[in-house]
Amino acid sequence: MIKKTSLKDIAQAVGVSTALVSYVLNNQKENRISKEVARKIRQVAQELNYQPNQIAKSLKTSKTRTLGLIVADIANPFSSSMARIVEDEADRQGYTVVFGSSDENPQKCQKLITTLLNRQVDGLLIAAPAGTESQIMTLQKQTVPFVLIDRYFPSLKTSYLALDNYQSTYDAVRHLVDSGYQRIGLITLKTSLFHITERTRGYQSALQENGLPFQKSRVKELSGNNPTPDVAKAIQLLRTGQDPVDAIVFTTNSLTFWGLKAIKSQHINLPSELAVVGFDETDAYELFDTSITYIRQPLQEMGQLATKILLESLNPNTPITQTNLKATLVIQASTQSLSVPAVQSAE
Amino acid sequence: MIKKTSLKDIAQAVGVSTALVSYVLNNQKENRISKEVARKIRQVAQELNYQPNQIAKSLKTSKTRTLGLIVADIANPFSSSMARIVEDEADRQGYTVVFGSSDENPQKCQKLITTLLNRQVDGLLIAAPAGTESQIMTLQKQTVPFVLIDRYFPSLKTSYLALDNYQSTYDAVRHLVDSGYQRIGLITLKTSLFHITERTRGYQSALQENGLPFQKSRVKELSGNNPTPDVAKAIQLLRTGQDPVDAIVFTTNSLTFWGLKAIKSQHINLPSELAVVGFDETDAYELFDTSITYIRQPLQEMGQLATKILLESLNPNTPITQTNLKATLVIQASTQSLSVPAVQSAE
Repeated sequence: MIKKTSLKDIAQAVGVSTALVSYVLNNQKENRISKEVARKIRQVAQELNYQPNQIAKSLKTSKTRTLGLIVADIANPFSSSMARIVEDEADRQGYTVVFGSSDENPQKCQKLITTLLNRQVDGLLIAAPAGTESQIMTLQKQTVPFVLIDRYFPSLKTSYLALDNYQSTYDAVRHLVDSGYQRIGLITLKTSLFHITERTRGYQSALQENGLPFQKSRVKELSGNNPTPDVAKAIQLLRTGQDPVDAIVFTTNSLTFWGLKAIKSQHINLPSELAVVGFDETDAYELFDTSITYIRQPLQEMGQLATKILLESLNPNTPITQTNLKATLVIQASTQSLSVPAVQSAE
Repeated sequence: MIKKTSLKDIAQAVGVSTALVSYVLNNQKENRISKEVARKIRQVAQELNYQPNQIAKSLKTSKTRTLGLIVADIANPFSSSMARIVEDEADRQGYTVVFGSSDENPQKCQKLITTLLNRQVDGLLIAAPAGTESQIMTLQKQTVPFVLIDRYFPSLKTSYLALDNYQSTYDAVRHLVDSGYQRIGLITLKTSLFHITERTRGYQSALQENGLPFQKSRVKELSGNNPTPDVAKAIQLLRTGQDPVDAIVFTTNSLTFWGLKAIKSQHINLPSELAVVGFDETDAYELFDTSITYIRQPLQEMGQLATKILLESLNPNTPITQTNLKATLVIQASTQSLSVPAVQSAE
């Protein structure tokens, strides 16, 4: 236990009663206390570095000015950048953020929700793992203020802030088709997470609406358990056989990273031998030989807006807000048009 | 405010007194309450998802089973990996971690310390920014349990867990000398942070103890405010003039990243035109054309051990523990020996 300066310590130092110290520090009965004594009490409180007990205060106001944030994995750059943005925005509004990683595990997510509620957070921001619908429904029944971030369940009527995932890959495939690529593969995760399956749906629609066949064999769904060899094998499979792909879209930042590692070790030349679209912005792309075309999520806007929506929803009867933000396709050398000769990537 | 199930709600649902509900849920007066009534109360409590008020509990026990962690910047991979390791270790011991980023700013660090203490954390792990000695001394006077992590102040007698920073760059320079490099530059931050100045000291000693001159012009200290152009310019300066360097050691992961970006855009061939030693392990290195020799910090050990030491020091009168862990030099293609012809990096 942290030994802190108590009202009693101050009372003893000044030589007055504890009650008097409490009145002064809580700005009560001001007219009945001499200004000189009040000044002395405040001065000693400052000298002894007195800090009011936030927990005791919380019990009275039932507000802790703390938000809970549940990310997928704080060690993933998407999660840590998001945490930083939420933290900064919350700080601007006078809130502290308590966070934890769900590890894409529903049990761990439930444990975190329970812990955070026990710590009396005022509200929650949750990047919900697959299989947590019932947890979210329970929160809603308990009227806990929360906003889903990055992921959401279309069957549940909850506030969320997420990407327009369908459109993100639709636009990427459309760009590849416009650049002359016709045999486009997709490397994605085997998951029921809506934000990921939407990315596959966007890929499929873009092919079909642009007169290209959708071939199931061109979609590789990986478990994510054994990523480096699995992604390398998926790329190899897509590029061999009777009908090799000329382009690959990756649906997450980790898949893109593992894919680029495999492309490097297989000595595949981008874009002359293969065009590539990555997902998310990460520092790592900048060290890759060819500059990578990627789908950029509006992280800053997503984190700030989600925090603002959560803070608004701390007021009772705030209506549900559902927002899908648009991604930007950052076009670089890895998807250069087939109609112009491939050159070295620009710096 | 989160509306939670109260003891009164349960009492009304079962049709008993609130006191009786309290006795049952706190395992009191067991012999005096009928098993059937106790069972019913527990069942209703579960159905209504009753959660004991952690804040009220905390007031009684003065323990919150929460640790505070102050990192430099949660968006930096070193900080976020560390946060994840601390979080996992704390979780294993039944503790939750509340975290925040100091942004290398003493004022922000003080604000975080105050916030965390107000939230009644049981103890603190702090990666202390420059200029926070007085804050750390105040914590010590208040007998707040804390452990400094990654950074520490040699003039203060506090528990810490950090790298042997001196030895880390000493070993890197020694390896370069052994590989035939003789004109070795250093790119570092302009800072009074002890863990960084120690890295410069290790570089200097290794040169002198290996019969090479220490030249101040070969040490470039950057502010970090305008990193991409500043690092590019530093590399250019080190490589031009009468006595160009044949090797560069970087003292942080960010400096290494910016340096590799500049090396890529300046089309410098590693190691034939320049040998490079990076700091820390980051994913980004794996996408760079040449595999990079780097100084690996024992992050896992550092995070776990710091958490364990903090938990031990929650007991009164625990002695101070000061530990410097050894780095490992991971030798790859970017520092290949000059006596063998340079080849492509191995995959």
